[in-house]
Amino acid sequence: MNAVDPLGRLQERLRRFAAARDWERFHDPKNLVMALAGEAGELVEVLQWVDQDSSRSAGQDPLLRPRLAEEMADVFLYLLRLADVTGIDLEAAAHDKIIANARRYPPIPGRKD
Amino acid sequence: MNAVDPLGRLQERLRRFAAARDWERFHDPKNLVMALAGEAGELVEVLQWVDQDSSRSAGQDPLLRPRLAEEMADVFLYLLRLADVTGIDLEAAAHDKIIANARRYPPIPGRKD
Amino acid sequence: MNAVDPLGRLQERLRRFAAARDWERFHDPKNLVMALAGEAGELVEVLQWVDQDSSRSAGQDPLLRPRLAEEMADVFLYLLRLADVTGIDLEAAAHDKIIANARRYPPIPGRKD
Amino acid sequence: MNAVDPLGRLQERLRRFAAARDWERFHDPKNLVMALAGEAGELVEVLQWVDQDSSRSAGQDPLLRPRLAEEMADVFLYLLRLADVTGIDLEAAAHDKIIANARRYPPIPGRKD
Repeated sequence: MNAVDPLGRLQERLRRFAAARDWERFHDPKNLVMALAGEAGELVEVLQWVDQDSSRSAGQDPLLRPRLAEEMADVFLYLLRLADVTGIDLEAAAHDKIIANARRYPPIPGRKD
Repeated sequence: MNAVDPLGRLQERLRRFAAARDWERFHDPKNLVMALAGEAGELVEVLQWVDQDSSRSAGQDPLLRPRLAEEMADVFLYLLRLADVTGIDLEAAAHDKIIANARRYPPIPGRKD
Repeated sequence: MNAVDPLGRLQERLRRFAAARDWERFHDPKNLVMALAGEAGELVEVLQWVDQDSSRSAGQDPLLRPRLAEEMADVFLYLLRLADVTGIDLEAAAHDKIIANARRYPPIPGRKD
Repeated sequence: MNAVDPLGRLQERLRRFAAARDWERFHDPKNLVMALAGEAGELVEVLQWVDQDSSRSAGQDPLLRPRLAEEMADVFLYLLRLADVTGIDLEAAAHDKIIANARRYPPIPGRKD
């Protein structure tokens, strides 16, 4: 896919998508976190009855893979839209969080990140 | 931030992070969708008592903004990790879903995406 | 409805329901919390685009009320089933939690619970 | 616990709890489904790294049991409060849903609910 600013490119598409349907008025942060939580719920539903060991090959399963991909996309799109309307840089926030996690959970002695 | 394959770069950091802590064994798809749902729940909690209109300026609020950024990052990191272990291309899935949504919800006549 | 141990009565019905379908093997706590989270996600979806003020009359809305009732029932059924398989007394846990919350958040001076 | 209308009794306590803190204004259906989803997320977090087989004995685990009980109580309390403010009879809705589920998923031939 587009290697130059793929997040910004997706956000630009979502912005045009919302504008072309007059949906900006629905896209306040409160509604968007709800929509994201709803999609996270649908993602969980894909694997709720799948045995934990079997879930390891879910990415190769012809029935599960497309369902996972679709629900993951839904979560991602609402996350990108939420980042856009709040002006939060998702990529920077992610790198910051990895750094914070690394401090909180140091690597096994002798290994490094 | 890095404009060249930022998602792949974050996934590579998360892969090393998990390896340095022997956490790969926990990162099966079933556990990861649960972890993502947990973080989505925390994201919802940030705005649960915030009035809908006030939520519009949450991105400028000195208390809410960092909390939103952190929870959004957590959702994003688990989503990236899930995409990695299932071999699903998150960016491609997102573009596919926008196309599917555009068919399902056509733009207002006279406007376009 | 039945005023004598309604929670126990619902749990008994759910126990028979699962047994009659050989579903006990799916009803471990990990799967059940996932199922509950999925239904909580569907409940959130009912109101995700509903304006906060309008949501106040959702219980009187002919379209929203039955959808809310159904998703609330789904959350409740998985919660009861989870309580049953873990041997946790949901009613006692709820009373305990109200007491803990009352300590954490004292009433406004001059009022009492 | 109280065998006479335990749900009504809990709802009455929650009503007084909200009134004594002037919290009724926060308890609209939109906020309450968000709060419920947040607690469902915390419930999922309790078991997210617990192996599926180990989760079967979570109700006997000295660390997991109280955490499960607390998060289940939180989900239950918001569910009861939501039922109260929307005027939905949770027990009736649950019985209705069991009947609907029984039609949708008939028992194994020779068995009955």
